[in-house]
Amino acid sequence: MGSVKEIFFLLLAAFFVVSDCSIETTTADRYIEHGGLNAGDADSTNHDANQTHQVQRYKIAEFDFHTVAQPFVISIWIVVASAAKIGFHLNNKLSSWFPESCLLILVGVILGVILWAADVTRIVLDSHTFFLYLLPPIILDAGYFMPNRALFDNIGTILLFSVIGTLLNTLLIGFSLWGFSKSGGIGAFDLDLDLLHCLVFSSLLSAVDPVAVLAIFEEVQVNEILHIVVFGESLLNDGVTVVLYHLFEGLSHIGQENVIVLDVVYGVLSFFVVVGGGTAIGVLFGFLTALVTRFTDHVRVIEPLVVFVMGYLSYLTAEMFHLSGILSCTFCAITMKKYVEANISQKSHTTIKYFLKMLASVSETIIFMVLGISTVYATHRWETGFCLMSLIFCLVYRAAVVVFLTAIANRFRLVRLSGVDQFIIAYGGLRGAIAFSLVALLDIGLFPFQPLFLTSTLLVIYFTVFVQGTTIKPLVGLFRIKRANKHKPTMNEQLHSRMIDHLMAGMEDIAGHHGNHNQRLLFENFNARYLKPMLIKRRNLRARGLSILNVYQKLNEKDAREMLSNGSFADLTQLQNMSHSMADHLHYNNLQ
Amino acid sequence: MGSVKEIFFLLLAAFFVVSDCSIETTTADRYIEHGGLNAGDADSTNHDANQTHQVQRYKIAEFDFHTVAQPFVISIWIVVASAAKIGFHLNNKLSSWFPESCLLILVGVILGVILWAADVTRIVLDSHTFFLYLLPPIILDAGYFMPNRALFDNIGTILLFSVIGTLLNTLLIGFSLWGFSKSGGIGAFDLDLDLLHCLVFSSLLSAVDPVAVLAIFEEVQVNEILHIVVFGESLLNDGVTVVLYHLFEGLSHIGQENVIVLDVVYGVLSFFVVVGGGTAIGVLFGFLTALVTRFTDHVRVIEPLVVFVMGYLSYLTAEMFHLSGILSCTFCAITMKKYVEANISQKSHTTIKYFLKMLASVSETIIFMVLGISTVYATHRWETGFCLMSLIFCLVYRAAVVVFLTAIANRFRLVRLSGVDQFIIAYGGLRGAIAFSLVALLDIGLFPFQPLFLTSTLLVIYFTVFVQGTTIKPLVGLFRIKRANKHKPTMNEQLHSRMIDHLMAGMEDIAGHHGNHNQRLLFENFNARYLKPMLIKRRNLRARGLSILNVYQKLNEKDAREMLSNGSFADLTQLQNMSHSMADHLHYNNLQ
Repeated sequence: MGSVKEIFFLLLAAFFVVSDCSIETTTADRYIEHGGLNAGDADSTNHDANQTHQVQRYKIAEFDFHTVAQPFVISIWIVVASAAKIGFHLNNKLSSWFPESCLLILVGVILGVILWAADVTRIVLDSHTFFLYLLPPIILDAGYFMPNRALFDNIGTILLFSVIGTLLNTLLIGFSLWGFSKSGGIGAFDLDLDLLHCLVFSSLLSAVDPVAVLAIFEEVQVNEILHIVVFGESLLNDGVTVVLYHLFEGLSHIGQENVIVLDVVYGVLSFFVVVGGGTAIGVLFGFLTALVTRFTDHVRVIEPLVVFVMGYLSYLTAEMFHLSGILSCTFCAITMKKYVEANISQKSHTTIKYFLKMLASVSETIIFMVLGISTVYATHRWETGFCLMSLIFCLVYRAAVVVFLTAIANRFRLVRLSGVDQFIIAYGGLRGAIAFSLVALLDIGLFPFQPLFLTSTLLVIYFTVFVQGTTIKPLVGLFRIKRANKHKPTMNEQLHSRMIDHLMAGMEDIAGHHGNHNQRLLFENFNARYLKPMLIKRRNLRARGLSILNVYQKLNEKDAREMLSNGSFADLTQLQNMSHSMADHLHYNNLQ
Repeated sequence: MGSVKEIFFLLLAAFFVVSDCSIETTTADRYIEHGGLNAGDADSTNHDANQTHQVQRYKIAEFDFHTVAQPFVISIWIVVASAAKIGFHLNNKLSSWFPESCLLILVGVILGVILWAADVTRIVLDSHTFFLYLLPPIILDAGYFMPNRALFDNIGTILLFSVIGTLLNTLLIGFSLWGFSKSGGIGAFDLDLDLLHCLVFSSLLSAVDPVAVLAIFEEVQVNEILHIVVFGESLLNDGVTVVLYHLFEGLSHIGQENVIVLDVVYGVLSFFVVVGGGTAIGVLFGFLTALVTRFTDHVRVIEPLVVFVMGYLSYLTAEMFHLSGILSCTFCAITMKKYVEANISQKSHTTIKYFLKMLASVSETIIFMVLGISTVYATHRWETGFCLMSLIFCLVYRAAVVVFLTAIANRFRLVRLSGVDQFIIAYGGLRGAIAFSLVALLDIGLFPFQPLFLTSTLLVIYFTVFVQGTTIKPLVGLFRIKRANKHKPTMNEQLHSRMIDHLMAGMEDIAGHHGNHNQRLLFENFNARYLKPMLIKRRNLRARGLSILNVYQKLNEKDAREMLSNGSFADLTQLQNMSHSMADHLHYNNLQ
């Protein structure tokens, strides 16, 4: 515990350094004021010995924080976040019992209370910073390392949950809250709530948060299907959330009495624009990135940068048109990955992998910590009835909608989702920083109940992250849910799964049903014939085709190393045969 | 050439997109304006169909550039820089004849002329951005991959050039320019120049630029001694430049007639503060980084980030106190490297290496391109006499000072610098973006000749980068200068060089002369006894001690692979013996 304490004090010290300037840094850019006297001009009230002279003398040393304030504060934040991360993992007990996200929020709250008591500064998660800088790295990382096959195998179920599920949740929660505020029944609360305001609140509250889900599910490690259904839902529901939030917020501006049918029709139409547009921009940027990496043979050094920047640009471009940045960035990463990986060098690959993970990890850490701090500083309003009912509606409707939609999905699924699976999907529906950022954006002039919404949102976030996040791991163990089975598929498995795909496509063809496998086969043919030759270097295209030889060579090398380290050369003739046959193959390879 | 053209048009398109917003982005932070109507409020003059309604209707889609302007513009710049880099290397002839830096400046100038003609926007290299964001990655990269041994073996010569050399150049150029402006001799120019103004100008003009030197010398690949002397000088002269520039600029503020001796004494003292303080901050941050990486066993993912952020913080902290950020960052990287490398994982090592190279490369690209664009937009003033004399003084005094200082240095050097070496050192004294940024910072109110200084600085930069930068490669070939000999030292070489170090230290001891080798031995003892146990994980400390076994294992593995690929297992008994003896060693290793 000693080291954790130490790091905590380090955190504190850093914050007090930062606190002094947090206001200045957000106002405007400043320019370096070189020259000894500029600083002196600024604080002319300073009583020093030089005051007696008519002109101020040249100074040996000076202190000028404002010049470097902005990057300095950002760097300190990153250092603090890193220190917090290191601190937790030094203490094994703590990190094995609680998820990192909970601990980070707690640290944030404690820091917030101390800062609040010391009354030094006001730190609140800035929605602008969150959406433009903290969220994109996490989404890019998630998209780039998305298990594509699992995603597209379960795309129907995922879309059902993310589109219909989020919509149902929004409507159910919104109307229920409004109804309870109007009726005088049990658990009712006497607030003059507007229906549209309730719907704005429920739209931001009903979306599962990808950041929270990633943080928790990374530690739980359930099987791939469960993971992709919950995580896929959290990523793809962004489109729905953006539309519903903007729609209801826009309609609130117009005013409930002025809303005409056309507005609602436009709202429904905008769903297709937001989802389709976001996805299209993402796919477009993905292909563009692939195309650029075709020509980086002589400038390997910028390969990782191209991937990061293009992914980020896809997010920004979508946001610029008020489309779904999350969808855009996700699909950009999914699209580019296969082609980029074929084009870039091994070193670039490692750099991309570890740097993306690093960026995402730091963003996540900062998000949870600042969420904790913001809790202290936000303007709250507590109404027991409304807050508790929001939480209960959230949990109950989530469960009900999951059960209802699973019943539909199971009619079409080959691998059905069991009752336990449904429980984990419902229980894993964590809320997080996106909801907080959206509620913080609401204008208190238009939404007089904004503080109440904010408090309720935080209650739901804390309940899902702390109670559900902490207990989901033991529950997964209790229900004996199949855990993730992480191993690289062997060559044998790859060959068989490929064959089965073709077989299934053939069967679908015979049955006259054009399903999943048929579409995949069609896409793969199109990909091999048109996309790959355009987006992958010719040289690497060839090498891919002969990848079976590479695998063979690697296996041989591995065997040789193993034999060497075991000191057993019993089966020498076999080894010799292997090496000969490999040499033949390589010879053949060269001739090609 | 087709592809180069294509990329050029891409560049243009990007710039026109960017141009529209470059002013807004620098003013202040903006917040995301969610909600359909906010944008509508802003441009209410917009004549659309909705104007007839009393309230504006909900919109399906919107465009809002301001929200994302800042990160979008930065991303576009990076994309443009990457595209320019890729473009050059697609054309082999171009990139083999001209250094990349020249081509990038040219592209910048062409872009600048087009933008100027189209009158869309005004892009000038912002000194604030340059010193705070573009320079640090380059310095961190340079420091981290500094050949330490070569640096400290030649530290005397390097310090002589960087401190005394820069000082001499500044005084000589400054006084000569002032003298010529006062006298009526040949080549004189009739300008009423202030002595202090001349000295400010000469102080920023006389420092060799690390960015320009790196860019050119990376392609030339002279031997290690020449490289480290020129490059070391360019890095370490920053302290002198900062002091002289601030001193003369500060004195100009005071006014020539008001300067008293105390100011000059303070100026001299501030040299020690700036250099000593900068170095101390760097070393401190270096040790701190090493200490942090001792505890990152469970959070490997943040290791690269810690290195980047701490290096950056060392730069910012030094700049905050108006000390030399370049010295601080360089020594931070030099100090941390050995300990950090011993602590972090192999993957983190690769990530650091490639990401640093990537950041530095992009920064460099942007710097040269914007330097080109700035040339077009800057406020110029051409005075043939003054401009040409600045250039001539720069070149002549550089050569004279190098010859003079080499004569002194050669008295103490074991490996003397030959005449040809001296020529390359003088010829490699390139000027670059630092000089431009400093001259751009001068206040035109106080320095009425600022436009003249700026034009002259650009002339010197262009001459050194274009003429000297392009011809240095053929000249190095012509003079048959020893090229860089890049190979990893074999175990044999390492052992011998270690033994010779000890031998030399012993001889120095006998001779009663406490020189270089003695100091190194002392430091290495201190390092092994106190620093390493504190800064390196215990486990890795042990592993280092047994590194000879690792080398042995690797050699064996290599042999096994080679035999396998050759298909020759003739000497099987030997291989078997090897594997057995290695197994024994590993066993011994485990017992330890």
